[in-house]
Amino acid sequence: MRVSGHNPLDAVPFMAVDLDRVEDLLAASAASADPYLTEICSHLVAAGGKRVRPGFCLAAAATSLLDGESSTDHAVTGATAVELVHLGSLYHDDVMDEAVVRRQVESVNARWGNIRAILAGDFLLARASELAASLGVEVAGLLAATIGRLCEGQVLELKHSFDVERSEEQYLQAIAGKTASLLAASCRIGSIVTELPDDQRAALTDFGHSYGMAFQIVDDVLDLVSTEADLGKPTGHDLEEGVYTLPVILALLTGHGQDLRALLGGPLDTASRDKAIDIVRDSVGIPESIRRAREYAATAASSLEILPDSPGVRGLRAAADYLLEQVELAAA
Amino acid sequence: MRVSGHNPLDAVPFMAVDLDRVEDLLAASAASADPYLTEICSHLVAAGGKRVRPGFCLAAAATSLLDGESSTDHAVTGATAVELVHLGSLYHDDVMDEAVVRRQVESVNARWGNIRAILAGDFLLARASELAASLGVEVAGLLAATIGRLCEGQVLELKHSFDVERSEEQYLQAIAGKTASLLAASCRIGSIVTELPDDQRAALTDFGHSYGMAFQIVDDVLDLVSTEADLGKPTGHDLEEGVYTLPVILALLTGHGQDLRALLGGPLDTASRDKAIDIVRDSVGIPESIRRAREYAATAASSLEILPDSPGVRGLRAAADYLLEQVELAAA
Repeated sequence: MRVSGHNPLDAVPFMAVDLDRVEDLLAASAASADPYLTEICSHLVAAGGKRVRPGFCLAAAATSLLDGESSTDHAVTGATAVELVHLGSLYHDDVMDEAVVRRQVESVNARWGNIRAILAGDFLLARASELAASLGVEVAGLLAATIGRLCEGQVLELKHSFDVERSEEQYLQAIAGKTASLLAASCRIGSIVTELPDDQRAALTDFGHSYGMAFQIVDDVLDLVSTEADLGKPTGHDLEEGVYTLPVILALLTGHGQDLRALLGGPLDTASRDKAIDIVRDSVGIPESIRRAREYAATAASSLEILPDSPGVRGLRAAADYLLEQVELAAA
Repeated sequence: MRVSGHNPLDAVPFMAVDLDRVEDLLAASAASADPYLTEICSHLVAAGGKRVRPGFCLAAAATSLLDGESSTDHAVTGATAVELVHLGSLYHDDVMDEAVVRRQVESVNARWGNIRAILAGDFLLARASELAASLGVEVAGLLAATIGRLCEGQVLELKHSFDVERSEEQYLQAIAGKTASLLAASCRIGSIVTELPDDQRAALTDFGHSYGMAFQIVDDVLDLVSTEADLGKPTGHDLEEGVYTLPVILALLTGHGQDLRALLGGPLDTASRDKAIDIVRDSVGIPESIRRAREYAATAASSLEILPDSPGVRGLRAAADYLLEQVELAAA
């Protein structure tokens, strides 16, 4: 099930139909010879999602389509592979976070236990690699390297949990791995399967990377400035988990940094968390983070300039516009 | 570090030197841009192992070598990839089993926690896929499918834990996935990278599969008939974990099956465990399991008959002989 209306690419004419093809291949990929494993692997697939990564892969591939044409089977396969990587990593994330809910349904680990959640995640990652192998060695190598980068990004984040000395560079490296790498790979795979020239491949990869960086910074700002009702989780959740994101890192460098530093570095009670949130909200950490997100979003948009007009480019431009709107909403 | 003297292929002339090349590539593959992740990923690599799977891959590839020749770089790469799959799955196994010791050193999950152990396992599996991709789409696809089969085998085992109705067929399916599939893939990858003809590829794949089946059955018999000192863990550990292996399944079908059935189906205290072990030991479950292991080992040996003489075939024959010895030792 795809959650429509939330994917910035939904406005692209061919997208809805071709994302349904991705949905079918996702369901087929989650199926194993064993019905029990199939049930576990299908759980999050069926819970749906925005399918942003498949959308990027299809849109990148569609930069070589004419109006009215549909995505190739290769593009659909690549789009499915990147979503399987995302889903497989969510299975493992939920074990790691001891999550009980994911995408409005019970998490796999809560329902079937950690062991089955780990195995199902491994299975989905393996299925992603199998699809990638069917697209050639370049895609297979890229997808494998990207899974490695996802792990590196997550480990970098863990390494600096509760670390008030975490630097902006360390933060940017972590989100480049954990978020931007798979969006960049999604675009790149779309460009590989349609055999685009190298400069267009590079442009689309840069687009995915910059989009991912902006997207994650916005997400991290929202965690501090949104209401619990909007977030669906308590405001300042990252702070509680010891994940000091860009606004916090920048706030720590300001005049009120000492007050914030005194609160952070370990678990927070509710009063301290709220005080820390207030300090960050009142600091330049928020507008400075927004400024960086805006820069990344602008870089993403400008990456597309070398590409000739096509349904795919129009889709990605719409996504970039949507992202800039999100940046401004977070700033408001 | 390789534990020599335990790999049935150690007697093969070129093997020691070429397994050292695998060791170097394993160390390089466990290295990430981040020293912290490198440390975690290197932990089990450095703890060593028998490197049976790399040995099989090298030996299968060496069926096209002449005496005195060394393994090709492709064979070494394939051998490293299969060991990385094995290692990555051990990282996840240890989280699932809540193990505290692995290969005589502290387990990764015990030392760094479950989160890092899951991520490091994912990273090693990704590195394996990257190496496989460098060997072409056939190897990449095979390795990915094999990781899927490993997961399926483990899930099949879990599904029937504490299940006194577990059938011989369900047992054989589970061990085909969790053990035999990677040994079969190890041999097959060796045969692919040296571009052997299809019949030889099939013969080597069958060898790995049958070897793996016999090996796992022997391992499961030993868990019931060996002493704690020999096993390094309590006798009947599988019984305690609810994993009812072939000797138990067959014992349940005999005259004393009812007594055994009354004990099993849930957690065991020490007295009940010892009583259950005694019933299985005195049943035809042991000799019948040995008979099946002997059949698989004989099938493995006969799979090699179509292959012309070579250093590789001699190595695999030595491995088959070693396995038959192990079968008879377990029977003694």
